[in-house]
Amino acid sequence: MIAKKGKTTDEAQIRGLIEDWVKALRARDIEGVMANYAANVVVFDIDPPLYYEGADRLRLKWEGMFKSFRGPIDYKVQDVEVIAGDETAFSHSLNHISATGNDGKKTQTWLRATICYQMIEGNWRVTHEHVSVPFDPDTGKASLELEP
Amino acid sequence: MIAKKGKTTDEAQIRGLIEDWVKALRARDIEGVMANYAANVVVFDIDPPLYYEGADRLRLKWEGMFKSFRGPIDYKVQDVEVIAGDETAFSHSLNHISATGNDGKKTQTWLRATICYQMIEGNWRVTHEHVSVPFDPDTGKASLELEP
Repeated sequence: MIAKKGKTTDEAQIRGLIEDWVKALRARDIEGVMANYAANVVVFDIDPPLYYEGADRLRLKWEGMFKSFRGPIDYKVQDVEVIAGDETAFSHSLNHISATGNDGKKTQTWLRATICYQMIEGNWRVTHEHVSVPFDPDTGKASLELEP
Repeated sequence: MIAKKGKTTDEAQIRGLIEDWVKALRARDIEGVMANYAANVVVFDIDPPLYYEGADRLRLKWEGMFKSFRGPIDYKVQDVEVIAGDETAFSHSLNHISATGNDGKKTQTWLRATICYQMIEGNWRVTHEHVSVPFDPDTGKASLELEP
């Protein structure tokens, strides 16, 4: 019987994936950003549509986002919790993005991120991602000013 | 060695939890709605705050929601995908709510729901929940009119 990896190892691996992803995002490294998504990832994204499927489509969104910002993209992740089983895992965190659009408009907001992983051929892959901000039901506006 | 439950069984159990939860919600049965949350569930909810923790707080939100609607709360769940490991699982779905507020205002929108589960003392418990709608970055408005 092959020695089984411990959960601590799995958790550490997933924390490593998150750190690498943030580094790649800040570096506008699209290959790094896309490195660990499963081809059929199901995405519940910050902006419309309601949902979409596929790493190819997610790549287009990131490429568009990189183009829409000038200068540095400041991104950080905090309150990361990772729960890893043998073949399934999830993480949730509060993520902060700060960047300047091509129109000079500053974007700065906290996001909630839930990432779900499956072990595929020996590697943790993201098969589902949900990133959002809450909204105020009275105004219908996204609540972009909230802080942790 | 005790015979191990199959993944199919775990998936079926989790699908059962979701069905029971929807039934309880429609019946305004708060005990049923709260039946499977872990005490320390971390919630990324539709409306502010950015996040909160604890089944007690979630219960207050549901009780408030039940009071804020008059007449039936119509709730349905579709495109449910459940990925279950041994001790960790997640599900995602598109959920539709349709109800009438005490002010006569009709609420009808599609939501994205990601639910994360852990096996705790032999039962699947929800330890994380993320429910949201996307928003339009150009207007800052929540996108409440989207359809699957």
